[in-house]
Amino acid sequence: MDYTAPVDEIRFVLGSMAGLDDLRADGLADDLDDDLLSALLTEAGKTAQGLLAPLNVAGDKAGATLSGQGVVTTPGFPAAYKAWCEGGWNGVDAEPEYGGMGLPVAACIATLEMWNSANMAFALCPVLTQGAADALALHGSDDLKARYLEKMVSGEWTGAMALTEPSAGSDLSVLRTRAEPVGDGSYKLFGTKIFITYGDHDMAANIIHLVLARLPGAPAGTKGISLFLAPKFIPETDGSLGRRNDFRATGLEHKMGIHASPTCVMSYGDDGGAVAWLVGRENEGLACMFTMMNRARLSTGLQGVGVAELSTQRAYAYARERRQGRAGTEATAPIIAHPDVARMLLDMRSLTFASRAIAFSTAVATDRARREQDPARRAAASAREALLTPLAKAFGSDVGVEVSSLGVQVHGGMGYIEETGAAQQMRDARIVPIYEGTNGIQAIDLVSRKVVRDGGAAAKELIGEIAAVAKAAEGKLGPAGGLLAEAVSALSEVTDWLLGASEPERLAAAYPYLTLFSYVVGGGLLVKGALAGLNGAPGAPADMAVLARHFALSRLSHAGALAVQARQGAGPLSDPQAMAAYA
Amino acid sequence: MDYTAPVDEIRFVLGSMAGLDDLRADGLADDLDDDLLSALLTEAGKTAQGLLAPLNVAGDKAGATLSGQGVVTTPGFPAAYKAWCEGGWNGVDAEPEYGGMGLPVAACIATLEMWNSANMAFALCPVLTQGAADALALHGSDDLKARYLEKMVSGEWTGAMALTEPSAGSDLSVLRTRAEPVGDGSYKLFGTKIFITYGDHDMAANIIHLVLARLPGAPAGTKGISLFLAPKFIPETDGSLGRRNDFRATGLEHKMGIHASPTCVMSYGDDGGAVAWLVGRENEGLACMFTMMNRARLSTGLQGVGVAELSTQRAYAYARERRQGRAGTEATAPIIAHPDVARMLLDMRSLTFASRAIAFSTAVATDRARREQDPARRAAASAREALLTPLAKAFGSDVGVEVSSLGVQVHGGMGYIEETGAAQQMRDARIVPIYEGTNGIQAIDLVSRKVVRDGGAAAKELIGEIAAVAKAAEGKLGPAGGLLAEAVSALSEVTDWLLGASEPERLAAAYPYLTLFSYVVGGGLLVKGALAGLNGAPGAPADMAVLARHFALSRLSHAGALAVQARQGAGPLSDPQAMAAYA
Repeated sequence: MDYTAPVDEIRFVLGSMAGLDDLRADGLADDLDDDLLSALLTEAGKTAQGLLAPLNVAGDKAGATLSGQGVVTTPGFPAAYKAWCEGGWNGVDAEPEYGGMGLPVAACIATLEMWNSANMAFALCPVLTQGAADALALHGSDDLKARYLEKMVSGEWTGAMALTEPSAGSDLSVLRTRAEPVGDGSYKLFGTKIFITYGDHDMAANIIHLVLARLPGAPAGTKGISLFLAPKFIPETDGSLGRRNDFRATGLEHKMGIHASPTCVMSYGDDGGAVAWLVGRENEGLACMFTMMNRARLSTGLQGVGVAELSTQRAYAYARERRQGRAGTEATAPIIAHPDVARMLLDMRSLTFASRAIAFSTAVATDRARREQDPARRAAASAREALLTPLAKAFGSDVGVEVSSLGVQVHGGMGYIEETGAAQQMRDARIVPIYEGTNGIQAIDLVSRKVVRDGGAAAKELIGEIAAVAKAAEGKLGPAGGLLAEAVSALSEVTDWLLGASEPERLAAAYPYLTLFSYVVGGGLLVKGALAGLNGAPGAPADMAVLARHFALSRLSHAGALAVQARQGAGPLSDPQAMAAYA
Repeated sequence: MDYTAPVDEIRFVLGSMAGLDDLRADGLADDLDDDLLSALLTEAGKTAQGLLAPLNVAGDKAGATLSGQGVVTTPGFPAAYKAWCEGGWNGVDAEPEYGGMGLPVAACIATLEMWNSANMAFALCPVLTQGAADALALHGSDDLKARYLEKMVSGEWTGAMALTEPSAGSDLSVLRTRAEPVGDGSYKLFGTKIFITYGDHDMAANIIHLVLARLPGAPAGTKGISLFLAPKFIPETDGSLGRRNDFRATGLEHKMGIHASPTCVMSYGDDGGAVAWLVGRENEGLACMFTMMNRARLSTGLQGVGVAELSTQRAYAYARERRQGRAGTEATAPIIAHPDVARMLLDMRSLTFASRAIAFSTAVATDRARREQDPARRAAASAREALLTPLAKAFGSDVGVEVSSLGVQVHGGMGYIEETGAAQQMRDARIVPIYEGTNGIQAIDLVSRKVVRDGGAAAKELIGEIAAVAKAAEGKLGPAGGLLAEAVSALSEVTDWLLGASEPERLAAAYPYLTLFSYVVGGGLLVKGALAGLNGAPGAPADMAVLARHFALSRLSHAGALAVQARQGAGPLSDPQAMAAYA
């Protein structure tokens, strides 16, 4: 898989579009100077290209398999994971106290894009480890942290998140896994979980499961769910690995893509109960999970961005090489010279840039929320992070699906043949809008929790910033500034309308509103980048202004239609005849 | 695979939306009375459900394989094909002279949708046979027709179209397969073809290849290509099968989907030359192929419609059954009760209806073009058929991809698991925008040959008809009539602009223009159907008006944006910086 880490472009988006330069100018990222950032991104790029990308096709072909001894990953994966951990990549933004580099989240997220481009199925494993480590760091007892965290930050032990059950997916309130107190501070778990990513594998010495379960007598619904830690091997007090815990993978899902990532059916407690310890307080398990949800959703959005970048690179390369048909004066021109192929390529590249800029902006907001001293500024940054997170997840994943499908199309018949790789990208990308909260749930989160709950304050502040970008673009980028200004107006109007809308109206409006919001933020960031380029910002891609104009014409132009859909779409959806078909 | 043939809906779309009732009222389809149409569609539905659908998953899993004796299809396919042919389904609209039923093309196309829903990989085989039989009927000598046509109409022998070579895909001008005259009226072929669908298999006694090749001394480019017929087994004069011809499948492509359909690498003439006969005149092979292209493209569009229908049915069924989360007063409601799920379902169903209506309208135009006595009416119908064909192919296939992807999303995590089937539909559908002329090529065909060449006459006539539908809808379907009228205006304006645009502008505008045109025609037909329902037309689906309104809000609302893209999109595409990335 021929992936070239776009180090310069990532640095430009981080610095001039996503706000990292501002963060540094405010003295909030002094630990990340130019040299360190360059070195970090360059080394990550080499690792992604040299270590992970070569295993991407093999992982798709061989996949992970289940043997009597547990899950066996694709040959090469265990060694690559070990080397990757030894490079320190598992702890870029983790606390130095536990062995992490302690760098800004933005730096970590930039490297995460590269792991995902190189090998999305591989990159899932550390994302899960980080999620589990974050939950433990925030809610675990000092004893649990001392026992587990350092090895999870180094990557020597990996993490798994065991939430879903056959009847409890998007709605965890009905989950049934049981936890029984043993009396010595530990618990025993009994139940079955499905869709447990890297729930078992052979890449690390131990696997630390965070499991949602119910205690005896717990209230029904979401208020009776607790969070537990259950290690595959129970560590002795000296840190060495003790006996095997009572849970195992009893099946692997046969999926459309990310074949190298084992999606396990996990059975807990078939032989007396899986030993576990409570994380956080009883019956507050869902709240514990929510505190790490922003980060997990951002990381998931990056999977879409990463696959989109890979697809885009490969489509450009193919379109330069493949010659078919006359274009201009050439009898058989490279297909990139055909306007409709160029259109697809610019779609791919501008969407990838926009989704990357949104994801990186979310990460910078996270850093600002953690690092600002002033409480009001912290709160504002935190609100920005919360607002951008559903966009980062849903738009990033929608872009992954759309761009990878365009990648197949640019390849023509060869794109449909598995040997080319374009099909793998499309199959891999298709999961991302589904897990870690479906995109429909992201849309509801956006309208209900992020926009309406604070009376539109956070949304309006962001919209105001983008309006200023549109104004600055007047007369400079062809129609882009005007289209951005119109889209900002449309978004403003729908936002005001949402604040007074009924719940059914809001829910019906949610998805078109999310798409409209993503277009405006993505378009605003592209225009900001193009203006920075015009003003001589170093490292601006040569086609930055073209991307902004193309995105404005192809996406921002749809703002009015999305507003119509958001405001009036509830009509048909609430029509008594609407769902009559196939009744 | 649980598919229920939507017989009543298909009949309604045929009659009240696509114009079959008008055709019959004009006395041009007296061979297809109500009873016959009902019986035909009902029987086809039963055959699709009972014979083909049960093999759909097996075909995906087992696929076709290559053995020393040639291609082996999925167990069950040969017997199903035999039974299907015995039902007479291979010749619904073929000439009675050769054993066909001689019914209108529209009737045949309606059954084709069902074969594609039930088992797209299976349905490809007869589509190829029909393409080859059509080319033979139009251009073959009397001797060739007498020898081959009857068995191809019955399906006893199948057909294959051997056009593509590794360097000659969309651009056939550079193909290199050679034909040498033997001196007895026959030729010998030498060369390699790729992507030959059902080029070899074990479902029929003989396979008749139509092969594009160059004669010695033929002019370079498209004007030096001739069409040849080469049978797998050379028939004796008594019709029995004689010796094996000198061509074979040397490889099968490993594809993303339609695994049961063998995509062959074919080698001709490794052992002295494949025996073949000229079809049509020397060096006019491409022209011969073009005469059957409209039908082939329509049939391909139906694949998208068929898969979209299957995905839609399965998504509705899953959304009624799967319970997650509160909706209204229900603590755990079926997910169809969640507005964003309902939005996806209405997207799926309205898109499927619109693409079906466009495809069926194309078929009715074909029938009118063949059956009208008046030359001017024939010509007008023929122009309508030509205009609608790229919409039927490209929009039908785009709908197949979009709807099947939504089908995965509605299923949530289960959609990504292969066992559910939703993933198979998405993988199967993804080829359709690529083959039989990529959708980009359809778009160029639309703007260049179908709209600009006649000064916009055919386009304007159709647009005028839809404007009248919009007017009739005023005050009757909520915002649908107004949105349709606005979309008609946008399409009119872009059409006028296209007539004066430069070639690069036209080519850059082609795809957004095609989408805009498809939305207007599809939306117009949905509104027409909804009005017919309001006026008491029998058999109208209960949600017809809802579908029209939803399509108007979700698709017609985008007309203005598509017009902006079409008219201004060439700017970025022709920018010197546009393709600078990854240079």
